[in-house]
Amino acid sequence: MRRSKAFIPTTKEAPSDATLPSHIFLSRAGFITQVAAGLYNYLPLAKRVIKKIENIINEEMTKIGAQEVELSFVTPAELWQESGRIEKFGKELLRFHDRKNNLFVLGPTHEEMMVDVVRNRVTSYKNLPLNLYQIKTKFRDEARPRFGLMRGREFIMKDGYSFHATTEDLDREFDTVEEAYKKILTRLGLDFRIVEADSGAIGGSGSKELMVLADSGEDTIAVCSKCEYGANIEAASRSKRSHIPEAPEVTFNKFKTPDVKTIDELAEFFKIDPYYTIKCIAKRVIYEDESEIVLFFVRGCDNLQEVKAVNATEALDIVDVTEEELKEIGLVPGFIGPLDQDKAKHVIDSDLKDAKDMICGANEAGYHYIGVDLSVLSDVAYFEDIAEVNEGDICPHCEEGTLSFTKGIEVGHIFKLGTTYSEALKAEFLDENGKAQPFIMGTYGMGVSRMVAAVIEQHHDDNGCIWTKATAPYMVNIMISNIKDEAQVQAGEKLYKQLQDADVEVMLDDRKERFGFKMKDAELIGFPYTIVIGKELVNGHMQIFERVTKEKTDIKSEEIFNKIMELV
Amino acid sequence: MRRSKAFIPTTKEAPSDATLPSHIFLSRAGFITQVAAGLYNYLPLAKRVIKKIENIINEEMTKIGAQEVELSFVTPAELWQESGRIEKFGKELLRFHDRKNNLFVLGPTHEEMMVDVVRNRVTSYKNLPLNLYQIKTKFRDEARPRFGLMRGREFIMKDGYSFHATTEDLDREFDTVEEAYKKILTRLGLDFRIVEADSGAIGGSGSKELMVLADSGEDTIAVCSKCEYGANIEAASRSKRSHIPEAPEVTFNKFKTPDVKTIDELAEFFKIDPYYTIKCIAKRVIYEDESEIVLFFVRGCDNLQEVKAVNATEALDIVDVTEEELKEIGLVPGFIGPLDQDKAKHVIDSDLKDAKDMICGANEAGYHYIGVDLSVLSDVAYFEDIAEVNEGDICPHCEEGTLSFTKGIEVGHIFKLGTTYSEALKAEFLDENGKAQPFIMGTYGMGVSRMVAAVIEQHHDDNGCIWTKATAPYMVNIMISNIKDEAQVQAGEKLYKQLQDADVEVMLDDRKERFGFKMKDAELIGFPYTIVIGKELVNGHMQIFERVTKEKTDIKSEEIFNKIMELV
Repeated sequence: MRRSKAFIPTTKEAPSDATLPSHIFLSRAGFITQVAAGLYNYLPLAKRVIKKIENIINEEMTKIGAQEVELSFVTPAELWQESGRIEKFGKELLRFHDRKNNLFVLGPTHEEMMVDVVRNRVTSYKNLPLNLYQIKTKFRDEARPRFGLMRGREFIMKDGYSFHATTEDLDREFDTVEEAYKKILTRLGLDFRIVEADSGAIGGSGSKELMVLADSGEDTIAVCSKCEYGANIEAASRSKRSHIPEAPEVTFNKFKTPDVKTIDELAEFFKIDPYYTIKCIAKRVIYEDESEIVLFFVRGCDNLQEVKAVNATEALDIVDVTEEELKEIGLVPGFIGPLDQDKAKHVIDSDLKDAKDMICGANEAGYHYIGVDLSVLSDVAYFEDIAEVNEGDICPHCEEGTLSFTKGIEVGHIFKLGTTYSEALKAEFLDENGKAQPFIMGTYGMGVSRMVAAVIEQHHDDNGCIWTKATAPYMVNIMISNIKDEAQVQAGEKLYKQLQDADVEVMLDDRKERFGFKMKDAELIGFPYTIVIGKELVNGHMQIFERVTKEKTDIKSEEIFNKIMELV
Repeated sequence: MRRSKAFIPTTKEAPSDATLPSHIFLSRAGFITQVAAGLYNYLPLAKRVIKKIENIINEEMTKIGAQEVELSFVTPAELWQESGRIEKFGKELLRFHDRKNNLFVLGPTHEEMMVDVVRNRVTSYKNLPLNLYQIKTKFRDEARPRFGLMRGREFIMKDGYSFHATTEDLDREFDTVEEAYKKILTRLGLDFRIVEADSGAIGGSGSKELMVLADSGEDTIAVCSKCEYGANIEAASRSKRSHIPEAPEVTFNKFKTPDVKTIDELAEFFKIDPYYTIKCIAKRVIYEDESEIVLFFVRGCDNLQEVKAVNATEALDIVDVTEEELKEIGLVPGFIGPLDQDKAKHVIDSDLKDAKDMICGANEAGYHYIGVDLSVLSDVAYFEDIAEVNEGDICPHCEEGTLSFTKGIEVGHIFKLGTTYSEALKAEFLDENGKAQPFIMGTYGMGVSRMVAAVIEQHHDDNGCIWTKATAPYMVNIMISNIKDEAQVQAGEKLYKQLQDADVEVMLDDRKERFGFKMKDAELIGFPYTIVIGKELVNGHMQIFERVTKEKTDIKSEEIFNKIMELV
């Protein structure tokens, strides 16, 4: 492509709301333009990157026997009513009526539709397993679309769905897809980690996320110092504490603690480690049709993990409450404890099960219990893992390494769905004994447009994008320094033709602009290699500028073609 | 692909509403499934066909320098308000509010959006011309979606848009795209005709349609017996009549004609050719905010062409009126003529300009005028081409051949838009003199999903689909007649591997089904070649079944591979 003909509207200014490098540079380098909140157009450079990613996904999916389909984007709301997800998705699910007043949704994911496609069409275990996928536009009416392609409302996703006769076969396919996803991310040149994840609104028995590691990632990942374990902090667990402080020796008692309301004050007051205190986090828990206040108890040294709290209560969401709301139902803020109190539902962190020598609120202003033995609650209270892991906790997998935190961008999510959707939509097959069984399903997502942003979050510098070889819209940029120099033009045109004939994706910067301007443009766009044809041409030299290292290397003109072929 | 693993749910029954071969066979052969009225899922076979078509489009577009983009499907309604098309499109334009109550539409075409992308980003004539295109899902909320993929609500379209500094350059690009489109249809193996077309709701100064010739086509095309001229009947014109009957010799007079209301009765009554009578077609003409009755006059031997009538009145639509409505405004049904009558607006067919020796209604019950000379109206009445051409009329292009009718499926439409959209959306560039000018535009559509159906409309028989080589989902189907015969299985597997290694797209029918069943299935799906490995294998023979000719040819087993490579 000749740069003079290419539609690459680079600009100096980034959008005013852009904070992430990918948002800034993809906008400035003319890859994307914004249409409205969370809606973007992909211009020619971005479209090329997307197709490269899609091709790699298609190749790896085909290798594992998955078959590509394309499902209707506009989806009957009935299917979402059948599965019960129309409520769970809330306003993110965009709904509208057609001219005949039938209710439809814009598909944000296609579990229901895919089950509908397969039900009554695959009827025997003999036709299983089956793995169908598509790469298509999706829509989620996000409350706060932001960060450019990272969290758009309209986005491109690869969504795949597998159907099985047994859970063992689902496990096998899940591992197969995980391997294929690893290959895809490796081929794309991304540094990533596959981590344990929360299953969220999709449901199911287990899930993993593909995290592209980047400082700007919205997700926090706990990773082990010793083994392969990694988990989204929403789902991370720990084996045990790295260090358990000495226990205070007291017998059970009610103790006057005026004005001691926070954990820090409490630990200070009794001169003990917060490990031996019980923290109460009160939240309003939202269900489909109602809401209630729930009290979450964790050790004073821990924090509540909200996603775990949502899962523990099977809620749609949890929100903060005011002290007034607590007082209204008879609670005493600052002094709430799990003993002798039934004003609200309790959820106690598993780590507190049978805990001894604890201090907690006495549900009475100015008083705490000390020397509490929680084993009295073992059989009556609801214990669940609701605490967030801390850096330094011991890995739950190898039980040796310690956990530390890093940031990641979720570009994929794979789920063992089980029979949630097939049961809801009555999608069944006949097993070997001729008995009807619901399909056992897996679902496998990969954010294609988000991946474009993720590449840049991981690969950029102050000057712009640095595309990996597999994702670069063009591998080589030939820059004619001075377009008025006939020799430079001829050499540029010749090399351009040579590279095109060799199937190298090449851009020829033939614009009548200053060298410095064109060079800045090239760095902003992020071609892996720029060949500068400039003053040294008369001495038989061209220069290769490598974007990632910023190294400039002089090469003899007659060797340039071979050198490029070697590099690409 | 192994047929035993492939998701191809063939069925005996077609959908109850299916009348067209493409709808019946694409459904029965497991290419598509219906989701709701006008909404379809593309299963693996259809997705393969679509990708082949898309690849060919992409290759030909790239060759002419067009650049691929992808625009947001969800489009702000504001852009459609700016262009004024939000009303013109009516209910076909699906509208909805997002969670923040902003109005959006699902893009049925993207002129507005593309102009918005280019405005303020291309600012100089130096960056023109520019041709941008995308291949993406579109949505039109059709009142009567029907015929499967032929007239769906959600469909896949290639839509391209070009921007120019001069009309000459638009003309050049229009011709270039026309040539590229010809190549695409030729490569796809389709019999087609490019015809003059009406510009419809898109607007602009000229347009052509790409018609795939098929008996089931919804469009009627007038084609010349001698030259290349072809036109959609909505836009077809004629040079002159092939035969002008002898004129009746009478002087102007009012004549009593009791009970003579129709043209046939009139011609019979006066013993003249209907050519010399004037037919009145009264219609209600719908504008944006109002409607009125308009009288269209054509020769008695002609018919009103409704699209021409809509264009002549610049209406949104025209509908029928009842005799009562005519009487209400003082007209006399059966006796309406264009002379001395101002009850409603008149539009007279151009062919009647200066017509002599005519007979027309006298606007009085039971009376006609005879010997009418319409030249009295030449300067006062509104003459326009509103009559439909007839078979046998002389070609307007070569003025020698005669027109005949054939049926076509519109798979593409290219328009010279001019400045309609750039003016409405204030999209301007600076010309050579530094003066701001609106972009001169072209727009180029091609129905990708409709093309899948068009291939089958043109290529099928009673047994099913007959894919062309360029569109076949798989070129070769290897059928192992008896899966229990180890020799047949081994020969099939060997050939399967050989063909895969040679990059031939091949299906291996390894199912434990009867030969007859599998053969019917193969014909229904329409693989160009099926290799039958059956009883003759022991005698060293396989059989090639060619789908289009239904010919079966015995080939020596050792020659089969080379023979296939020769065929594909």
